[in-house]
Amino acid sequence: FVEGSDRPSMHQAMAATLEHCVLENRKTQQEARSNGKAFRPRWPMIILRSPKGWTAPRQVDGHYLEGFWRAHQVPLEIGDNEHHLRIVEEWMHRYGPEKLFDEAGRFIPELKALAPKGTRRMSANPIANGGLVRKPLDMPDFRDAAVDVKKPGATLAGNVPTLGDFLREVMRQNMHNFRVFGPDETQSNQLQALYEVGKKVWLGEYFPEDADGGNLCPDGRVMEMLSEHTVEGWLEGYILSGRHGLINSYEPFIHVVDSMYNQHAKWLEKCNELHWRAPISSLNLLITALVWRQDHNGFTHQDPGFLDVIANKSPAVARIYLPPDANTLLSVADHCLRSVNYVNVIVADKKVHLQYLGMDAAIAHCKKGLGIWDWAGNDRGVEPDVVMASCGDVPTMESLAATALLREHLPDVKTRFVNVVDLFKLVPNTEHSHGLTDREFEAIFTPDKPVVFNFHSYPWLIHRLTYRRPGQHNIHVRGYKEQGNINTPLELAIRNQTDRFSLAIDAIDRMPRFRVTGAAAREALLNQQIACQQYAYQFGIDRPEEANWEWPY
Amino acid sequence: FVEGSDRPSMHQAMAATLEHCVLENRKTQQEARSNGKAFRPRWPMIILRSPKGWTAPRQVDGHYLEGFWRAHQVPLEIGDNEHHLRIVEEWMHRYGPEKLFDEAGRFIPELKALAPKGTRRMSANPIANGGLVRKPLDMPDFRDAAVDVKKPGATLAGNVPTLGDFLREVMRQNMHNFRVFGPDETQSNQLQALYEVGKKVWLGEYFPEDADGGNLCPDGRVMEMLSEHTVEGWLEGYILSGRHGLINSYEPFIHVVDSMYNQHAKWLEKCNELHWRAPISSLNLLITALVWRQDHNGFTHQDPGFLDVIANKSPAVARIYLPPDANTLLSVADHCLRSVNYVNVIVADKKVHLQYLGMDAAIAHCKKGLGIWDWAGNDRGVEPDVVMASCGDVPTMESLAATALLREHLPDVKTRFVNVVDLFKLVPNTEHSHGLTDREFEAIFTPDKPVVFNFHSYPWLIHRLTYRRPGQHNIHVRGYKEQGNINTPLELAIRNQTDRFSLAIDAIDRMPRFRVTGAAAREALLNQQIACQQYAYQFGIDRPEEANWEWPY
Repeated sequence: FVEGSDRPSMHQAMAATLEHCVLENRKTQQEARSNGKAFRPRWPMIILRSPKGWTAPRQVDGHYLEGFWRAHQVPLEIGDNEHHLRIVEEWMHRYGPEKLFDEAGRFIPELKALAPKGTRRMSANPIANGGLVRKPLDMPDFRDAAVDVKKPGATLAGNVPTLGDFLREVMRQNMHNFRVFGPDETQSNQLQALYEVGKKVWLGEYFPEDADGGNLCPDGRVMEMLSEHTVEGWLEGYILSGRHGLINSYEPFIHVVDSMYNQHAKWLEKCNELHWRAPISSLNLLITALVWRQDHNGFTHQDPGFLDVIANKSPAVARIYLPPDANTLLSVADHCLRSVNYVNVIVADKKVHLQYLGMDAAIAHCKKGLGIWDWAGNDRGVEPDVVMASCGDVPTMESLAATALLREHLPDVKTRFVNVVDLFKLVPNTEHSHGLTDREFEAIFTPDKPVVFNFHSYPWLIHRLTYRRPGQHNIHVRGYKEQGNINTPLELAIRNQTDRFSLAIDAIDRMPRFRVTGAAAREALLNQQIACQQYAYQFGIDRPEEANWEWPY
Repeated sequence: FVEGSDRPSMHQAMAATLEHCVLENRKTQQEARSNGKAFRPRWPMIILRSPKGWTAPRQVDGHYLEGFWRAHQVPLEIGDNEHHLRIVEEWMHRYGPEKLFDEAGRFIPELKALAPKGTRRMSANPIANGGLVRKPLDMPDFRDAAVDVKKPGATLAGNVPTLGDFLREVMRQNMHNFRVFGPDETQSNQLQALYEVGKKVWLGEYFPEDADGGNLCPDGRVMEMLSEHTVEGWLEGYILSGRHGLINSYEPFIHVVDSMYNQHAKWLEKCNELHWRAPISSLNLLITALVWRQDHNGFTHQDPGFLDVIANKSPAVARIYLPPDANTLLSVADHCLRSVNYVNVIVADKKVHLQYLGMDAAIAHCKKGLGIWDWAGNDRGVEPDVVMASCGDVPTMESLAATALLREHLPDVKTRFVNVVDLFKLVPNTEHSHGLTDREFEAIFTPDKPVVFNFHSYPWLIHRLTYRRPGQHNIHVRGYKEQGNINTPLELAIRNQTDRFSLAIDAIDRMPRFRVTGAAAREALLNQQIACQQYAYQFGIDRPEEANWEWPY
């Protein structure tokens, strides 16, 4: 920075530099298109180092202003200080306003004519209002990827791999405006079906071994870098300019983008107030490699708290889904990919899990957002003793197993089984457009029965969503309580009281009818729980009867 | 990476490189110490590019392993696969175990003797167990920085600048093991008193204008870079190696370090399980430039949600303080700087605010963590009609103003005023060591009176902390609800219903005694609220009567 430097010539230099770079880019594009070979050009980069407070008077009251930290905020008090007002006046006169405006104070026509017109105006560039150039995805039928479920809780399948099959077809039908982003875990996260139609973008050096499952390609459709904030930024740019995408991330590390999510959500919230802003594709986040299945990674990889960050933002923008199995995951993903102006968070573990709902049942369940699974309860037409509720894939399995244990040990018990897919159904309808009315809420959770709620994330999030509900004091939530280590799945659940035994004991303790007579069942469950812990400690894996558990009815 | 490369010679090269770097460092240190001049050396940096899965067999079953992605996780199934077991055996034989172990399988003495002893062992280096080398701070008396408060709610002072005076003295007495870190906002955050004893570390080029308040110095004690995660990392390294420090950050951008906080909290949590880990200084975070005073920055700068992230972690580690004025801030800071193995979050706005408590009252209030301000209520010896509660500096002022409005408009009303400094006092004592018992909680908040609680952050955090409390349905919380723009302070409060008028109206609506007779007062308050909005819209600032409000009793 040079004091009094010649500004018009700086403007010319900037224009010339821009022109040079645009021509360089065009040359590169022509070269690639004419010889049909992908290569990695040295794209031009402009480094513009400008003085702070450019432009302002260089000195005021003996202190430097332009080019110095004192130019921050409001450095001249022209409202109260006559001397400062004069400084600004003199300084602005250096721009020669008498040459720029006519006697009536109008901008002179030849300068006015320089301004670009129509979509050449920076603010009217359609790329900067991406919804204008956005085309809806050409969607395949998600039902084609369905898992066949003959009997609930008896078939195993990978939820995320099934989603991968569907996303592969989405990609196949939208090879120019759909990408999947992630921190180098597309395969680890079981979305490798995508590579069948779009590999990882890679313009660097290739080695012979890359042919053996490297899945690299110069014009791929999957964008990977082990940097959550970089891939989140790529996806934001991609959807802001009118395209579609999804990011997949390990659950514990998605907190890296908390701050980026906050700003994107605020931006979307404000867009809703601006009639000229065309809707853009939703920001879709698939959160996988979940807290409950970190048997080899341990405590550092156990953090389901991203949902708390999401839920703080405007209900006009935030959406959270926890599909319990593959078909519900497909239905949720289809909905999210079609939506606009939301942030959709989908929580689904990458490992193999029990399947509960056939496709039609899954669609109905997701449409309702939460619902009673009548095949799992036995309260049809009668008052239940207890409501067993769950949200999330692993917690749902443990809740079902607890329900089965209750029915086994207390044949007389009446249970209702509720599963929640759409988390914001729990919030009153006055607070979130997805929320149930209190009447709907009571119809599901009862006005006065104990609810033993097994939740994927930190348990207090459920209380924070339901504190206004009548009967909220009957809701007893279990979830991750920051208790963990390199544990087997069942050990980890037991440490956090989200396991089948703890849930069944919880239910017994809270059903007045069984508080005394349930003692034998309670004791038997405790004994089983201890036996499971002993086995896991000794062998490093869970007992086969719990690890291979199926819904017994 | 070269297949079959000569490993012993690589080890020698690594050792030689390390030796070279250590000698380079010593030379630089000697040079600086002998000529007494600070300069910026090119510290050596070792770039070690090692193959993935180093070392492992290069190929298994026709697939590359070492140096390739297939080396991830468990690439050889030696438990089930006899062929794999043979591969591992052969590969390990290449290390020549017969030369390394004697016939009884013992490591040979001449190699065993190579291992370093005592604190030369990497795991026993005291710098890696920083608590061993940590010395407690030599603490000045925080009372010396006290603000004089003759009458509550009548004096203005800067809370954070007062803290700055105290921190300056802490720094002065601990010039070798205390630093303050921040993203270039030490001055903007009003901690500039620090520069009187320790300036910003700067080893780059100096310009003439830097003498004019640049506060740069090659051996300063304040570490600044506009990168929240970098300065957080610096501070973590500093305390992990046995020193003391504090980071200050704009509230909305501290979410950048969410993930780092999570991991540090988990690390501390596990340290509590390891008897040999000596306690380290707490990680102290001063969160300032708060949501309620973002009149010029607007919506993007309004995010008080860091507290939700903090509160998810173990109660053995997480601490949150919201001191309402300067003297309580001093008392809290003194406590935090003396503590070990916590993450202390202190929330305090950087602007000028009303002062409420003299130093003795402040110490008692912070010791209790929350308390009744008898000078602000009028329920001594009688049942209150309503409890007005507050947590945070700006919310406390609005709550007090609401209390004054109630007493003005309904002279008959009996109010109790409660202020919360230590957020975890609200949690049951069974969940957090700071928590009140239910009996203590009821003594403060009453078993059955309405509580109008004005909170600094998102309101649901209070519900999530108190959902187990008897009478929790009487607690009505106001806080930031993601409603904002470039608003005046009062406009912003009104949008989120945390303003004095909304709070007073809330109280009237919830006091059975005034539900009908309070109508005139309610209407008058609504009229005043509308008049304030009109004024703010017209003049861009708040009415003087509200902006300059003082406690009237």
